[in-house]
Amino acid sequence: MSTFAKPVSGVSPSHRTGTSGSVPSTMRALVKHHAGVGLQFVNDRAVPVPGPRDVLIRVLKAGICGTDRHIWEWDAWAAGRIPVGIVTGHEFVGIIEKVGTAVTRCTVGQRVSAEGHITAGVDFNSRTGNAHIASDTRILGIDRDGIFAEYVTVPEENVWPLHDKIPDKVAAVMDPLGNAVHTVMAAGVSAKSVLITGTGIIGLMAVTVAKAAGAGRIFTTDMDARRRELSKKLGAAEAFDPRSNDWIADVRKSCRGEGVDVLLEMSGSPAAYDQGFSALRNGGVAALLGIPAKPPTFNITQHVVFKGATVLGINGRKMFETWYQMEELLISGKLELDEIITHEFPLEEFEKAHATMISGEGIKVVMSIADR
Amino acid sequence: MSTFAKPVSGVSPSHRTGTSGSVPSTMRALVKHHAGVGLQFVNDRAVPVPGPRDVLIRVLKAGICGTDRHIWEWDAWAAGRIPVGIVTGHEFVGIIEKVGTAVTRCTVGQRVSAEGHITAGVDFNSRTGNAHIASDTRILGIDRDGIFAEYVTVPEENVWPLHDKIPDKVAAVMDPLGNAVHTVMAAGVSAKSVLITGTGIIGLMAVTVAKAAGAGRIFTTDMDARRRELSKKLGAAEAFDPRSNDWIADVRKSCRGEGVDVLLEMSGSPAAYDQGFSALRNGGVAALLGIPAKPPTFNITQHVVFKGATVLGINGRKMFETWYQMEELLISGKLELDEIITHEFPLEEFEKAHATMISGEGIKVVMSIADR
Amino acid sequence: MSTFAKPVSGVSPSHRTGTSGSVPSTMRALVKHHAGVGLQFVNDRAVPVPGPRDVLIRVLKAGICGTDRHIWEWDAWAAGRIPVGIVTGHEFVGIIEKVGTAVTRCTVGQRVSAEGHITAGVDFNSRTGNAHIASDTRILGIDRDGIFAEYVTVPEENVWPLHDKIPDKVAAVMDPLGNAVHTVMAAGVSAKSVLITGTGIIGLMAVTVAKAAGAGRIFTTDMDARRRELSKKLGAAEAFDPRSNDWIADVRKSCRGEGVDVLLEMSGSPAAYDQGFSALRNGGVAALLGIPAKPPTFNITQHVVFKGATVLGINGRKMFETWYQMEELLISGKLELDEIITHEFPLEEFEKAHATMISGEGIKVVMSIADR
Amino acid sequence: MSTFAKPVSGVSPSHRTGTSGSVPSTMRALVKHHAGVGLQFVNDRAVPVPGPRDVLIRVLKAGICGTDRHIWEWDAWAAGRIPVGIVTGHEFVGIIEKVGTAVTRCTVGQRVSAEGHITAGVDFNSRTGNAHIASDTRILGIDRDGIFAEYVTVPEENVWPLHDKIPDKVAAVMDPLGNAVHTVMAAGVSAKSVLITGTGIIGLMAVTVAKAAGAGRIFTTDMDARRRELSKKLGAAEAFDPRSNDWIADVRKSCRGEGVDVLLEMSGSPAAYDQGFSALRNGGVAALLGIPAKPPTFNITQHVVFKGATVLGINGRKMFETWYQMEELLISGKLELDEIITHEFPLEEFEKAHATMISGEGIKVVMSIADR
Repeated sequence: MSTFAKPVSGVSPSHRTGTSGSVPSTMRALVKHHAGVGLQFVNDRAVPVPGPRDVLIRVLKAGICGTDRHIWEWDAWAAGRIPVGIVTGHEFVGIIEKVGTAVTRCTVGQRVSAEGHITAGVDFNSRTGNAHIASDTRILGIDRDGIFAEYVTVPEENVWPLHDKIPDKVAAVMDPLGNAVHTVMAAGVSAKSVLITGTGIIGLMAVTVAKAAGAGRIFTTDMDARRRELSKKLGAAEAFDPRSNDWIADVRKSCRGEGVDVLLEMSGSPAAYDQGFSALRNGGVAALLGIPAKPPTFNITQHVVFKGATVLGINGRKMFETWYQMEELLISGKLELDEIITHEFPLEEFEKAHATMISGEGIKVVMSIADR
Repeated sequence: MSTFAKPVSGVSPSHRTGTSGSVPSTMRALVKHHAGVGLQFVNDRAVPVPGPRDVLIRVLKAGICGTDRHIWEWDAWAAGRIPVGIVTGHEFVGIIEKVGTAVTRCTVGQRVSAEGHITAGVDFNSRTGNAHIASDTRILGIDRDGIFAEYVTVPEENVWPLHDKIPDKVAAVMDPLGNAVHTVMAAGVSAKSVLITGTGIIGLMAVTVAKAAGAGRIFTTDMDARRRELSKKLGAAEAFDPRSNDWIADVRKSCRGEGVDVLLEMSGSPAAYDQGFSALRNGGVAALLGIPAKPPTFNITQHVVFKGATVLGINGRKMFETWYQMEELLISGKLELDEIITHEFPLEEFEKAHATMISGEGIKVVMSIADR
Repeated sequence: MSTFAKPVSGVSPSHRTGTSGSVPSTMRALVKHHAGVGLQFVNDRAVPVPGPRDVLIRVLKAGICGTDRHIWEWDAWAAGRIPVGIVTGHEFVGIIEKVGTAVTRCTVGQRVSAEGHITAGVDFNSRTGNAHIASDTRILGIDRDGIFAEYVTVPEENVWPLHDKIPDKVAAVMDPLGNAVHTVMAAGVSAKSVLITGTGIIGLMAVTVAKAAGAGRIFTTDMDARRRELSKKLGAAEAFDPRSNDWIADVRKSCRGEGVDVLLEMSGSPAAYDQGFSALRNGGVAALLGIPAKPPTFNITQHVVFKGATVLGINGRKMFETWYQMEELLISGKLELDEIITHEFPLEEFEKAHATMISGEGIKVVMSIADR
Repeated sequence: MSTFAKPVSGVSPSHRTGTSGSVPSTMRALVKHHAGVGLQFVNDRAVPVPGPRDVLIRVLKAGICGTDRHIWEWDAWAAGRIPVGIVTGHEFVGIIEKVGTAVTRCTVGQRVSAEGHITAGVDFNSRTGNAHIASDTRILGIDRDGIFAEYVTVPEENVWPLHDKIPDKVAAVMDPLGNAVHTVMAAGVSAKSVLITGTGIIGLMAVTVAKAAGAGRIFTTDMDARRRELSKKLGAAEAFDPRSNDWIADVRKSCRGEGVDVLLEMSGSPAAYDQGFSALRNGGVAALLGIPAKPPTFNITQHVVFKGATVLGINGRKMFETWYQMEELLISGKLELDEIITHEFPLEEFEKAHATMISGEGIKVVMSIADR
């Protein structure tokens, strides 16, 4: 100990170990009921009981993630990972209804979201501010019961108390927004030219986030004309069809003939890898969020070694630096999410909600589960 | 040598060692003619002759810097530094008229600005991308003839070719804009709350730069109500009179009770030092550009050591990372400089130009010296 | 959620919520029994009872810190901070004897040390890997009962399980060693020239740490000839008496005439501040651990602003990055601590132990409280 | 301009534009005389004439690089890159014999090495301290005449004046040593566990550099038993045969079951890529220097994205940060190069020199060309 500083402020979070009122014993929920397509709506799922360090949250709204599509469609990944019988879903906003006996950081009544990556807190990354890449992560709605339900329990360490200025609809999608913010902030876009390959949900979020976070010119690619238009509306200087001729040369030319400073790869397409790195200048930074379906044959020598490039693998969101960054961006009014969160359905219309998302008609689709 | 990569592009800058036309032998200029107040307008100053590695630039427009005020008023600093007889001024835009015999990087006819910090290129900082803090820097218009004149010579390494999209008026003030950009970028403001103490010329530029570079909420302080208004127009969430009560508590409160992420100190006032650091959260970053008139008694233990703060001394602009950042911010249309560059006068009205700047009536005042 | 990765390894820390055996109800301890000089030895202090998230640790060995000297001597700082009646001390090694009902990360029987900075875990720094500078930190042995006793309780988040290769004597002083490691690592010394002003306990530790962490030449200053000799033994290229002539010029000369890359200020002396910064090159990094008795008049303009220096306030140790770094340095055998940990006394000889430390006869003095 | 600081020291490098004595008109040299195996010794090569910004250096000693082996063997890469007729070689030490008319930074008589990457100085990387990855690099002995000759010319910006403490034999190989230093320093090894896959010349240098630069435990792999032994002698904790069983699990186990902090890939082998990344912990840093013969099929999703890894492409050496780092490491006596620089031959025995290097009998082989 070398310092004598008194605590600047004696924050002493109070809490109540009771509940806010009556919690029912059963609830409505979407269950991955069989090893096949779809989810099942039930109204008699047992309400979970929080452990001593957990909180019980009443879910208000939930976002449907690209991952939920995989679970719905029961592809190879889902079949290999998801335990049949769990409640799925992991993007949400809710109200704390009950706290465990050893809870000290949360209070009944708080409006919250939560980080879905749950770790034991004992490995290197968990203990150094990088729990998002802990080696023992278990994820809400993937490895254990999630939030397509009226109630969910999470460890109090995972809870994120929400700023009053953030509306429920936005709070419900802070998980994927956090992916975009983490990608953008990890790469560092301030006063830099940026190429975003792939403008799916997170790619589109990355456009408004990159603009808010200080990017200079933003270039995007997508095969879908509507998403290209939307990315321009959100701040892209130009949006290219990746199949068009010469767009890489055009991007390079507009960046002193050298290429963009930053690549945010959000498609997982091997072709986008090649195109994106071809458009990147020597010494540039590439942040990789997209997930190729199978290992690509990647010219790492040309694209990374000779270029002196920096490549960042992006997984989840920083716990909790990314959440603080999101909060600052949201409360300063710099993000445009209205055109990204396109649809909202009641939980009971979950089939329509999933169909709207899967068809591409909707971008981010939210389900409302309860009122405040 | 470990790599086999072929050059990606064979940039081979051509140049002409002639001139673009007739360069006269004498010129109009403002000279620091005596050890006292003011400058003298002359029309028979000898046009400088570029050395083998220099270029001769015909000056179009020039900005008046706060430093030029010190030189005009001949305060203690100026009396101790400025050689009587030199041409002053260092912010400018111009056209290359002639290149020295060994010049390889510049071409006659290029529209350029230039970095005013001239170094021998042999010390650690000069050889590692930090020439702006070289130990042997000599500055245009301070240690040698500057740019309040029709012509100036600078080493070709110092020349900055201008992007077509940047208008002359803005190009003329890239030197102080670069101070603001360097301060903002060194601190790192992306998705962070920022306090700027002091909104003089560079402080105001820092407001628009911080906003463009991705700051969340920006708070400013200034004793001048007009500048507070202008800082809000440029993007500040709030602008405080530093003499008002409780503003520090208000700022801290709006930042989770912890304080702002970033402090940009641009006033040089010891009181602002104390206030700014009091408003800074633990672990925050403070970038110091302002220059106290005399060494302040600074509670470095409380403000820096206990807080675990990072303090960055800011001097000049990075050569040339800052210039690239400015270019990207300018050509992406993110900076609002129209209300900062308030006045323009012909060179002959230099007394009025200086008076307008010194009185505070004008903010950034530009003198036009020649047409394109 | 954007990623599909399965946990690489399913670490599932087991624990027992019982005890390892019989824990007595009272214990030996050193108590700050009155508002004056000294400590009182008692043998009937109640053994603390761990809360649901706490562990009870049986203390084996404890280090005496410079802070403990302030508490012993009851200076102004101690009188203003320390609650009379507490058990003091915060550097230690011990064995977990009991775990609280909600503990999941610790196991009875583990040999551990612990981070003495206890936070509520709710502010920005606590949630982003920087709990060492949390705004609500309470410190073992300063704000609450410490470890000069047979037993202590700490929250399980603060526990550091010890690598088998680290002997008890060293484990007992990982707290101050962590100060040195945090300072050295924050500054970054790899392949750099380093000046350490002040070689008290932590300064001497910083010499061996800096050498191990990759510093090039290390220069030190101290008024005490014996410590200068020891610093050379530990790896310093030269050790100067700060009162001698020309040593700053000598250091600068040996560093290309420009100055050292890194300053580690460990004395808290205003003169050392001036000397250290005078020896630092432009663009250098200064890490400040020493604590001036009162705010110094610091020429921040010359020493920080013009130099473009980076100044880092150092407080505590990173939780827990510093501890991982320490472990790696210790188990790779790179640190020489034998000549720094000079004395060991049984707890009952606490007066002799403190006197040995206060007189300067000993450097780091350890008290043995129990056997394994 | 915002700062008033006077230059701290007025370094004013003098120079002589004459020569140190008589320079002959022809010289001994090794020429790539035909599109096939081998080099030709000639003794009537014209001595090059420095341009206005160049210096003429009399070569004392030269190192043989792995690249020179490719040129000797005339493989596909060499056939596609090397202009027949050039003098090859790029690692060297020499004395400046003559300076061009516009040279300001160098002096006749200086003992120097030089950076072999020559750029026009106009692109982003050249102007921001990263000329080593400039888009227009031309390399000594590859794209233009090199240093297997009595004389060579290089631009003065490329010259590195040598510290007196660095012997000629070491100075001759600062180019490849710089590759190792750049790799190690880019990754950052201080207090970290490090795996080096592949201990060829640069890999072995990386072992001693990593140890000197502050690495904790160093693990290496190589198929050659002699190199494994040598890497242990130079500081590796363990050296594995990459074909042995379980070595990856052993490395992970010894690193908390999580993996090493840092991977330095120096083999270019696709298998080593897979092994190295498998041994790397989540959130680890991989620096890639080795060059795969063809694009590998790389599981970037598992190895980079999910792990949240940072991957750094390494090319050349930073100009000139790496050279300063090398100097500090060398003059502080921390590098062990005696067992790496195994052989020295006179230029005339170039065939034996190349054979010794190609056979693997020698590690780093140096040719002596002239005496001081």
